[in-house]
Amino acid sequence: MSERRWNPVLSEWTITATHRQDRTFLPPKEFCPLCPTRGDGPPTEISRADFEVAVFDNRFPSLELSPDPPSIEGTALTPVEPSYGACEVVVYTPDHDASMGTIPVRRIRQLVEVWAHRTLILGALDGIAYVYVFENRGEAIGVTLNHPHGQIYAYPAIPPVLVRETASARAHLERAGSCLWCGLLEQELADGRRIVAQNASWVAGVPFFARWPYEVHLQPRRHVGWLHELAPAEADDLARLLSTLVRKYDALFGFTLPYIMATHQRPTDGGEHDGYHLHFEFYPPHRTESKLKYLAGSEAGAGAFINDTLPETTAERLRGLEVGKPG
Amino acid sequence: MSERRWNPVLSEWTITATHRQDRTFLPPKEFCPLCPTRGDGPPTEISRADFEVAVFDNRFPSLELSPDPPSIEGTALTPVEPSYGACEVVVYTPDHDASMGTIPVRRIRQLVEVWAHRTLILGALDGIAYVYVFENRGEAIGVTLNHPHGQIYAYPAIPPVLVRETASARAHLERAGSCLWCGLLEQELADGRRIVAQNASWVAGVPFFARWPYEVHLQPRRHVGWLHELAPAEADDLARLLSTLVRKYDALFGFTLPYIMATHQRPTDGGEHDGYHLHFEFYPPHRTESKLKYLAGSEAGAGAFINDTLPETTAERLRGLEVGKPG
Repeated sequence: MSERRWNPVLSEWTITATHRQDRTFLPPKEFCPLCPTRGDGPPTEISRADFEVAVFDNRFPSLELSPDPPSIEGTALTPVEPSYGACEVVVYTPDHDASMGTIPVRRIRQLVEVWAHRTLILGALDGIAYVYVFENRGEAIGVTLNHPHGQIYAYPAIPPVLVRETASARAHLERAGSCLWCGLLEQELADGRRIVAQNASWVAGVPFFARWPYEVHLQPRRHVGWLHELAPAEADDLARLLSTLVRKYDALFGFTLPYIMATHQRPTDGGEHDGYHLHFEFYPPHRTESKLKYLAGSEAGAGAFINDTLPETTAERLRGLEVGKPG
Repeated sequence: MSERRWNPVLSEWTITATHRQDRTFLPPKEFCPLCPTRGDGPPTEISRADFEVAVFDNRFPSLELSPDPPSIEGTALTPVEPSYGACEVVVYTPDHDASMGTIPVRRIRQLVEVWAHRTLILGALDGIAYVYVFENRGEAIGVTLNHPHGQIYAYPAIPPVLVRETASARAHLERAGSCLWCGLLEQELADGRRIVAQNASWVAGVPFFARWPYEVHLQPRRHVGWLHELAPAEADDLARLLSTLVRKYDALFGFTLPYIMATHQRPTDGGEHDGYHLHFEFYPPHRTESKLKYLAGSEAGAGAFINDTLPETTAERLRGLEVGKPG
């Protein structure tokens, strides 16, 4: 049972998805549903003995292309809609113990291709307003499966964070006649203190206004809106920079750093979004080696983020970590 | 070192507060800074041997009435402001092992009085746009001190969640000529399925559009904007309903349930907020007895909340828990 309920106070949809309560929760490695199906083991989600990158429908989806009718009737104040959309799982590698930081750049390049392709396909479906590529990594951030994987959600409405970002993009374009992220990138490159790593076509840095201590955004130098607009060399550079960043994260405290990876692309609702600039946002929850940042009273209840670090300090630390060239 | 940095992408301020990294972190009971100073023990934040409710400045504030100058210069795109404001701590009781669910209603009534008084005092200060009363309870939500306490933040700008709520209130008032929360309350009382508890002047229920499994909102029947507008009998009823709700929470799984308590009052910026209705919001992070809901990729990166439960089901469960009359 799944549906979308309108919250007229925050002007956003909540998705209810009660069947997800029973989803597989941190199974032992021998029962991992994202491993290949091997001769001597139980069948998994992937019926092959080997693969490179796999993408398939989430078995416990919040959104579906043929959703059931809602469990309840809405009202004028609180409308209810079927939970139309799609939830896909992207498995990064057959190796259960790998991660974005240990797989080769060639594999990350394949991921970029999959993300771009699924964005194109899902975004072209009737009624899909936004395609969101993301990864939750680490038990500290709430993953229920440890096998390296990410997810793709295709939402029927532009989700709240992107409503705000696209509004800012439109307002800035009208006011300044240029792209907000292009302006921020120019400022960051001139200043330099918050840059973490860069190559010919992509730049990674801690944002001036970081909300999480080791938050890093990755942005292409060229003004593009979607992953599928990247030229092959730009996609190569993205794969290399993702590898470098994640290996820096893993070198930071000496363990596989938990994070949320959020890919922010242009909406696919057919609206006017020329001013919006593709970027990746990484939020690791750690504020020190042993302490987490929580979204507690100020963040969850008022939306006011408090960052216990200075972006210049965390960027310097990440920049200084030597991790070698992406392999 | 503390400052406010403008995020032009989300149109909100981030507060940096680096000195908070060193704040006291889960000290053992004998070194609790929120216990009374007893003859044989070290001096605490409270220099008395006994008290009922204590309120004082946070020793590790994010916002201060006389803030230091910022650590960095802003730009046109990313302005920087001193972290003006106030952060206060409200200690609920001298008893280190108590909680909102075990202290008498008389004590909660004193808390309501303190919250109302501090809202009035802080809200009257020049440049304070919003007074936010909240509590983080439980290590699962990130508390750094276990002694029962809450906090009060006085922000120099209306924080993001309240920007959205006050905009919804204004839009609804213009469109419907009435208060959004009065309309929602009427709908909830007529339906009944999501009501958890109620008395003469306050109603507690799981919102139709709950984002957290056991989320509960408390709302006065009368249209008031601030705690200090409550009549004495309404403040009594609030104290009783808070006691009932928290005791239900603690009966739910048989342990002191972690939660965020967010008090949403009208802004104090002098703006037009007649359509805004005072309410409390509780977000417990548990989705089952042993599993937490995390704000992961969909929530933190896109703002799209997924609730693994139905509000009608969780409300029925909370409503059915017999906890006796508030004492």
